Amino acid sequence: MKTTVDLNCDMGEGFGHWRYGDAPDAALMALISSANVATGYHAGDPNLMNEAVALAKAHGVGLGAHPGYKDLQGFGRRMIRCSDAELVNDILYQTGALREFGRRHGIALQHLKLHGALYMEAATNASLSRHLIETLRASDPDLIVFCMHISETFTAAREAGQPVIREFFADRDYDDSGAIVFARKVGGFDPDAIAAKCLRACREGRVATVSGGDIAIDFESICFHSDTPGALAIGQAIRKTLTDNGITIAPAARALESRPG
Amino acid sequence: MKTTVDLNCDMGEGFGHWRYGDAPDAALMALISSANVATGYHAGDPNLMNEAVALAKAHGVGLGAHPGYKDLQGFGRRMIRCSDAELVNDILYQTGALREFGRRHGIALQHLKLHGALYMEAATNASLSRHLIETLRASDPDLIVFCMHISETFTAAREAGQPVIREFFADRDYDDSGAIVFARKVGGFDPDAIAAKCLRACREGRVATVSGGDIAIDFESICFHSDTPGALAIGQAIRKTLTDNGITIAPAARALESRPG
Amino acid sequence: MKTTVDLNCDMGEGFGHWRYGDAPDAALMALISSANVATGYHAGDPNLMNEAVALAKAHGVGLGAHPGYKDLQGFGRRMIRCSDAELVNDILYQTGALREFGRRHGIALQHLKLHGALYMEAATNASLSRHLIETLRASDPDLIVFCMHISETFTAAREAGQPVIREFFADRDYDDSGAIVFARKVGGFDPDAIAAKCLRACREGRVATVSGGDIAIDFESICFHSDTPGALAIGQAIRKTLTDNGITIAPAARALESRPG
Amino acid sequence: MKTTVDLNCDMGEGFGHWRYGDAPDAALMALISSANVATGYHAGDPNLMNEAVALAKAHGVGLGAHPGYKDLQGFGRRMIRCSDAELVNDILYQTGALREFGRRHGIALQHLKLHGALYMEAATNASLSRHLIETLRASDPDLIVFCMHISETFTAAREAGQPVIREFFADRDYDDSGAIVFARKVGGFDPDAIAAKCLRACREGRVATVSGGDIAIDFESICFHSDTPGALAIGQAIRKTLTDNGITIAPAARALESRPG
Repeated sequence: MKTTVDLNCDMGEGFGHWRYGDAPDAALMALISSANVATGYHAGDPNLMNEAVALAKAHGVGLGAHPGYKDLQGFGRRMIRCSDAELVNDILYQTGALREFGRRHGIALQHLKLHGALYMEAATNASLSRHLIETLRASDPDLIVFCMHISETFTAAREAGQPVIREFFADRDYDDSGAIVFARKVGGFDPDAIAAKCLRACREGRVATVSGGDIAIDFESICFHSDTPGALAIGQAIRKTLTDNGITIAPAARALESRPG
Repeated sequence: MKTTVDLNCDMGEGFGHWRYGDAPDAALMALISSANVATGYHAGDPNLMNEAVALAKAHGVGLGAHPGYKDLQGFGRRMIRCSDAELVNDILYQTGALREFGRRHGIALQHLKLHGALYMEAATNASLSRHLIETLRASDPDLIVFCMHISETFTAAREAGQPVIREFFADRDYDDSGAIVFARKVGGFDPDAIAAKCLRACREGRVATVSGGDIAIDFESICFHSDTPGALAIGQAIRKTLTDNGITIAPAARALESRPG
Repeated sequence: MKTTVDLNCDMGEGFGHWRYGDAPDAALMALISSANVATGYHAGDPNLMNEAVALAKAHGVGLGAHPGYKDLQGFGRRMIRCSDAELVNDILYQTGALREFGRRHGIALQHLKLHGALYMEAATNASLSRHLIETLRASDPDLIVFCMHISETFTAAREAGQPVIREFFADRDYDDSGAIVFARKVGGFDPDAIAAKCLRACREGRVATVSGGDIAIDFESICFHSDTPGALAIGQAIRKTLTDNGITIAPAARALESRPG
Repeated sequence: MKTTVDLNCDMGEGFGHWRYGDAPDAALMALISSANVATGYHAGDPNLMNEAVALAKAHGVGLGAHPGYKDLQGFGRRMIRCSDAELVNDILYQTGALREFGRRHGIALQHLKLHGALYMEAATNASLSRHLIETLRASDPDLIVFCMHISETFTAAREAGQPVIREFFADRDYDDSGAIVFARKVGGFDPDAIAAKCLRACREGRVATVSGGDIAIDFESICFHSDTPGALAIGQAIRKTLTDNGITIAPAARALESRPG
């Protein structure tokens, strides 16, 4: 049973004059403890990044880089077949870009969370995950990597000693293998049901599956998506339910410390 | 009379499979003391940046970010009319991206040099230069700014206490006002004549102008362009002539220290 | 007094998964007679262009290309200083891209309307307007050019014999010189007031100015913007008011024919 | 035995101020009968496209669009996993963009040849090839599609009645299955050996394979790559050898007419 958990959300996923999702970043930032800020390749631009970092600083939220494939048109949801070295360079580029805004606003970079198709590719591609983690060992051995609970990314980070956080997806369904049933269009969620699902996951370490099963799940952070319709209500319900039940929502770095050995 | 001077050159100004200039970066890197690495907006991509940073590290060359307008097609030579805040965010983004490769390879970011139309815009735009310097005071008060000897950028940096280096352009002509006579196409240079011009500038602090005049010039770094035809021979001639005459070529940070009060 | 007028609106100004404005293109397309479809440089992508062209075909709406500066981040509202030849090539590229979707759906390209800062640049830049019109004389001498009532674009098109349509901006204010008072943020419009303004412009050829004056205005098309808050209500009010008062809304090609000498 | 064959080459594969390959387009254009002009997604920009189209017109060369994946950094050599509909829209966009420059210079679009990873994807992806051909039946039923001799693209075009040309790759090796042994880096070619290989392919319809075998090959066009080192010498050798041996090099449209039933 958890007494502390991280709550993370993607931020700044607009571009230029476009915005995405129905919840303003400023409202979401008040609810979460870690923010994954889009870094310009699948969404995000320097102006939005600057705003998101300032918000994270103002709310004491852990700052994370959220790099994706270089594909604004596809929102980073389309896999691009390229070498591990190319992808890792793309990730470093975006990570550094965000970190610089942290320097400006006086907030350290807490974590790295890959976006969309790149997150999923790393989850199943051991070579890519190892290449990435090996690079982080050199560039920032304290940077926390966010990943799926069952993933090559988790394995690679654990083996190399890179700090790592596993996520529980509040607004996604699980199958019996523990994999997420990904969907391009999601919605129609009941915030209270999602909050209850999160509470049970924190207390019992278990989640129901789409087939009617029930599986064990390990995680240190709960993720909900800012572009899920009703994201604000979902975030509010999760926060209220967890805190009402004695679970502290705290940035990943602290959630990590409270993880049992 | 100088005993130490910095020698800087742009690096990594290709993109994807394209390269630019007839001199390989690896050969130029052996000649210079500071490298301005293109950061992806006007040229450069994460793979080229990674290579250039590794080369800079290997040769003990001072590492600089070389951000430009977001205009690959125009190679950053076309002014984009936008706000100071937007431009400074674009500059921070690119600066951080490069700095991250420095983290990977264990080399600190030494300097920032704007590229092309953005360099020229900042030189004459006091508001932009002040906005940029003010931001650097927060994000990196030790980052050395490279700029033209007479420029709003120099004025703003000096006033704010940001370390600043003025450049002498080896492969460009000066007019009587001390301004550079910019040309899209340059070439037909005699390396020895350029080297002699650099030597005189270091010794006497003077340079001949296109109108037949002769002006005083203050600088701490000599710049030649990697895309000037014959860049390698030019760089070799400058290096040999200066060192043969007792002038040490050293990274900007050291050239700065040796600057008379 | 007009009996026929064109009603035009920008369409497809999203990008990838992002949309802009609160009115769906499909709803607006039922109200207008000419659509300016974004062509990928400031907004729009091939998928959105395909949808918009299919909608235009389905509604019998005149199809127009709406090219802008290559600046997704700035939504084409930032001037890029480049040569006439470069800009005309950029315009041709975008125009052809849209025309191809017209070939697919069996609808001819009716018109060309520049976007944002490019529209304004051409309005005051005689050299650019002449270069553009001269090129259209070769590539498509029947393509109707949309422009401001007082503009170098209008002058150049008239002189060269290229068909041209002047616009009346329903949701923008005029000053006494006949120039539009451009604003990045607009809103708070009363649809009925806008419709009344359009009706008077059609009947009397006059419009009130921001300073309290009243000026003559010549035009063959009324423009309202799909990203103006309440665009749908504005479009509906204009359409109803005009048709209730015996003014036919018809594509630019027909509005052009009905133009007196 | 052929008496007429097309000779095609990629053109305009630079970007902005970057160029690619050691042979100038103008020199190559004098040798070939069909040009595949890069259309901006993997290479090429409106200025280069305009130049290439003017050159094709001047030399009486058949004009072709050469669309690729939207990936300048990867030169279109990296597969992007997306839907058939998205890809076909991307192809239409690029095709129309090039066709517009043909309108300007008074030269019709002769053919379409996909580039790099998109060419290879279509070759093996029946769904994509059928979707593309079906779209071309609507947008341009006379547009000649260039493809590999054994490919889903050829099958789809043939079945639908779209004109289609199969290519013989002069500067690539074949395996016993008739597939090309693709290589990122090619070179060290003997122009005369390549020319002899082409002559034999034209006369006997056969080519040697990398394993020492010998296979039959059907084609109507010979392709060599402008970025192959020594491309100019290769093109000259092919042209001279074929014409010296009584084989006419003529644009694809004519080569197609001379194809036996």
